[in-house]
Amino acid sequence: MTGRLAIVGLGPGASELTTPLATATLAAATDLVGYGPYLARVPEKSGQIRHASDNREELARANQALALAASGRVVAVVSSGDPGVFAMASAVFEAIETGKPEWRDIDISVVPGVSAMLAAAARIGAPLGHDFCVMSLSDNLKPWDLVLKRLEAAASADFIIVLYNPASKARPWQLGQALARIGRHRAGTTPVIFARAVSQPDESIDITTLADADPARADMRTLVIVGSSATRRVECGGRPVVYTLRHAELVEL
Amino acid sequence: MTGRLAIVGLGPGASELTTPLATATLAAATDLVGYGPYLARVPEKSGQIRHASDNREELARANQALALAASGRVVAVVSSGDPGVFAMASAVFEAIETGKPEWRDIDISVVPGVSAMLAAAARIGAPLGHDFCVMSLSDNLKPWDLVLKRLEAAASADFIIVLYNPASKARPWQLGQALARIGRHRAGTTPVIFARAVSQPDESIDITTLADADPARADMRTLVIVGSSATRRVECGGRPVVYTLRHAELVEL
Repeated sequence: MTGRLAIVGLGPGASELTTPLATATLAAATDLVGYGPYLARVPEKSGQIRHASDNREELARANQALALAASGRVVAVVSSGDPGVFAMASAVFEAIETGKPEWRDIDISVVPGVSAMLAAAARIGAPLGHDFCVMSLSDNLKPWDLVLKRLEAAASADFIIVLYNPASKARPWQLGQALARIGRHRAGTTPVIFARAVSQPDESIDITTLADADPARADMRTLVIVGSSATRRVECGGRPVVYTLRHAELVEL
Repeated sequence: MTGRLAIVGLGPGASELTTPLATATLAAATDLVGYGPYLARVPEKSGQIRHASDNREELARANQALALAASGRVVAVVSSGDPGVFAMASAVFEAIETGKPEWRDIDISVVPGVSAMLAAAARIGAPLGHDFCVMSLSDNLKPWDLVLKRLEAAASADFIIVLYNPASKARPWQLGQALARIGRHRAGTTPVIFARAVSQPDESIDITTLADADPARADMRTLVIVGSSATRRVECGGRPVVYTLRHAELVEL
């Protein structure tokens, strides 16, 4: 008997940003698989089994989830934000392609969620109001030269740039290099946002500029958004707001 | 007396993908402002006033909403998907910056939603599983040369590329040019997804390749996703799935 597997996005943190489909899918599962702190955000349900892991070894976690589903269980793999953006969905499909042939018969679904970047952008205004690029700064899974090439391309074409995984204890130097690379093409006054733990109790959001951005402000739970030439900071309702104009011009910097 | 204004993302279509925060914010509003078909997705509520408009004139709609809020109303501006991604949030902040000084005192919030691209990606697998760019192909608000420059940059740096507004009756030629430009840097076998009306009753999703992609398949309600060199198509649970590997290499095409 073959079970089912859903890869579920919880949204950024607050339960009011978790979709009804995600809530229902989690409630219907016999087994939850995921990083411990994400599982902790799912309401307890009697009889449901939780398989917590650390936040590395995504492929091992995917294999575990698929093995459970293949044995007939109804499995939900839990991601924060959206499961398709630097999260578990890609790992599960990779595990299917490289794993046991019978895993291809499992009924798989992906339940989207409000991603961290959308939640961060909403909190601060509308910085993603025009063309943007989304990148992970981690070089665990790609060469740093590729990261630099993509930063260069995104900056030179005046995209707004969203940086996931900007820093970790093992990679404290990357964000500084990345911001310097972007700075070759963009004014020092360009708004930069450090958004940490958006919609969670310890949320913190800093608005600064490319010239003043301190890479040490970022950690694993931080998302960094660097504006384009059309991104503006205004005061609104007594607080600073960052948004990007819907109009754009061809600029050379 | 000054009211409040929230810019609310409904998600892609299905109510099970609308967040509880969006639902609660809409229910608390005295006035709803938005494009008619989006307003039609909000449950009727006695006493609530609906101000429907067509899908152009975003700035006029934003001005109307701000004038209502300034007069003491509790206004929700309704967007499909996420309000910050090629939707109403940016227009509202632009209207505040260029509008009446007292509008800056209005309490403004943005309620994020599951964007069309996240919903489309979830439906098809995990095509956004690595670095990606998001662009509008419309040249209503930017020169076509800038669109081409950004396409060139995104394609040459091997980003996955998401195209909003790929075509309209007035712009039937742009998607063909865009795909040709991307094709300078990417193999003809690259997966391309046409996702229309995701999670709505008339949803349709086609998976094709860059060589076979027919621009005429796209209309105003279609989102196009072009894979990177690491995007793969596999069969899974009896259906085709597209996902992008979490690993990437520096490739030259």
